[in-house]
Amino acid sequence: MSAALSNDLLLRALLRQPTPRTPVWMMRQAGRYLPEYRATRERAGSFLALCTTPDLACEVTLQPLARFRLDAAILFSDILTIPHAMNLGLDFESGEGPRIARPVQTAADIARLGVPDPERELRYVMDAVRLVRRELGGRVPLIGFAGSPWTVATYMVEGGSSKTFGAIKGLMYGAPRDLRRLLAILADATGTYLNAQIAAGAQAVMLFDTWGGVLTPSTYREFSLEYMNRIVEGLAREHDGHRVPVILFTKGGGAWLEDMVASGCDALGVDWTTDLSDARRVCGDRVALQGNLDPGVLYAPPAQIRDRVAQVLASYGAGHGHVFNLGHGIHPDVPPESALAMVEAVHELSPPYHA
Amino acid sequence: MSAALSNDLLLRALLRQPTPRTPVWMMRQAGRYLPEYRATRERAGSFLALCTTPDLACEVTLQPLARFRLDAAILFSDILTIPHAMNLGLDFESGEGPRIARPVQTAADIARLGVPDPERELRYVMDAVRLVRRELGGRVPLIGFAGSPWTVATYMVEGGSSKTFGAIKGLMYGAPRDLRRLLAILADATGTYLNAQIAAGAQAVMLFDTWGGVLTPSTYREFSLEYMNRIVEGLAREHDGHRVPVILFTKGGGAWLEDMVASGCDALGVDWTTDLSDARRVCGDRVALQGNLDPGVLYAPPAQIRDRVAQVLASYGAGHGHVFNLGHGIHPDVPPESALAMVEAVHELSPPYHA
Repeated sequence: MSAALSNDLLLRALLRQPTPRTPVWMMRQAGRYLPEYRATRERAGSFLALCTTPDLACEVTLQPLARFRLDAAILFSDILTIPHAMNLGLDFESGEGPRIARPVQTAADIARLGVPDPERELRYVMDAVRLVRRELGGRVPLIGFAGSPWTVATYMVEGGSSKTFGAIKGLMYGAPRDLRRLLAILADATGTYLNAQIAAGAQAVMLFDTWGGVLTPSTYREFSLEYMNRIVEGLAREHDGHRVPVILFTKGGGAWLEDMVASGCDALGVDWTTDLSDARRVCGDRVALQGNLDPGVLYAPPAQIRDRVAQVLASYGAGHGHVFNLGHGIHPDVPPESALAMVEAVHELSPPYHA
Repeated sequence: MSAALSNDLLLRALLRQPTPRTPVWMMRQAGRYLPEYRATRERAGSFLALCTTPDLACEVTLQPLARFRLDAAILFSDILTIPHAMNLGLDFESGEGPRIARPVQTAADIARLGVPDPERELRYVMDAVRLVRRELGGRVPLIGFAGSPWTVATYMVEGGSSKTFGAIKGLMYGAPRDLRRLLAILADATGTYLNAQIAAGAQAVMLFDTWGGVLTPSTYREFSLEYMNRIVEGLAREHDGHRVPVILFTKGGGAWLEDMVASGCDALGVDWTTDLSDARRVCGDRVALQGNLDPGVLYAPPAQIRDRVAQVLASYGAGHGHVFNLGHGIHPDVPPESALAMVEAVHELSPPYHA
């Protein structure tokens, strides 16, 4: 478990330490755009079976590393493992995103929720972490992750994906105390869950706040960031003698980076709607930045992808503390060759920024 | 047509002139949340029939004014009237948003497009404008509108709504000259269309850039704002002795308000992810601001809606140049009573800010 990493660029960059080039990974790098992923998913029978079977989760976690020169593995899992462990009836089979059979909408629903024990109800995740670490053999670090309390709550309250967020916004504006109780439980469950991932071998952790961007500035601080702060405060920041960096990512949160820095995290994910040069000006040297190629660039031919990678590297500019990534997950209909062009461009074009 | 308005608060606020209170209207105020709208839509047989039948479009345009003390009518229409007039096979019947039977994806597709003559191919819109003006009898001003070239292009290229914007982003990053040609045609068509609406009687006009927020800062300026600028430059800013204010609205464009001001527009729409106090600090007294209650607030009870209206008014603060609105269209599943609570709260709470 504590074997030295042969490639620790990601961890160094997240801690703003010198690296010879910019490390690179992709959100959702183990995913549907890869034919080998689709084959394993087919064998698993369902998305949920893929998530909950450590052998298969490990297999798909490693697939992109066999194709691309990536500097990190990220555990294949889902942000809805916690509501799944809370026994709310999670299902991915409708073809329209996740469904939760028993949504959480009243004070009584919320009062019934408990904090899952990660080594029991979420054992399959911890087993996958341990298995991936073993299979990686120190090639690159493994990133663990969870959804932010706000983001996970949107699914729990809405009963699935939503366009209007009517149910959770009705709760937020109409019965804020109930929502705070739900978010507090989720913050507790998520902190416990991430600490268990760290104990099992995750070498960095990331909080995905996919839906924080649907909030106003003040409700973002009050209902999303506040609970991410609580999680960051309670995380084991060192394990096995190594610092475990923490990354926060709010999609659509470009205007709130300064507030997010105050959480005490090590790095911020930035989507493509904010220039990294602006993000860096706001954040200074307090955090590393991760991002932020528009995932839509991967619909263009390789030469244009290379040009856009060059623009992102130039936007961050000289110096350390940049982890190259997409600004959000890779889209399922992107050709793997496009991801290859992106990764290769980072390898080729980034060293001058670290001279 | 040139009859004096008995309520011109909207026009005065858009021109940053003094008003005794803050005027209020709602994006999509003529829409599915109203049972009387659903009844007319049913009678029309289809959404497209409702749009293209001036009598019915006029009827639904006026419906919200009979219920709420609104300070403007906005023409009931759709942002896809231009591609419809270009004969691309528009259809709303799938239940999943608009479909365009013949998407525009190649240089040859783009070369075939012409600029519709508003008084011929879009005559039904102009007739509706004239009819609404007659029926309004000067009670409140009528707002005309169009989609931004970028936003309309997303539907034309994707063939409908999209989650990834893969086709148009492939074009933008891979063949930008082709996309620029398409956007130039759309800017031309849209400017001509809005000028015809003004000639027919629209007393203010608004450009809806619903999807500008999916761009990066530089591609927003290059592929969305640039073409809105061209439209604003070519608009008739006076008609019948009256100034015709122009409103630009990019959803998700809170970081780009300063760039938008330079278009020469009179007012900017602001969504709920940016505080009006911040928007006002950035824009100074160069433009009026329109917005920005989170449409999700209307899922809460009336007392909480009132509190949130108070917060928006306080965020803009003392002085003129604020038009109260939602930060985006009213959701179809909102109770009309919630809209009433919002409108009444603006009437009741805004006068002190104009003392």
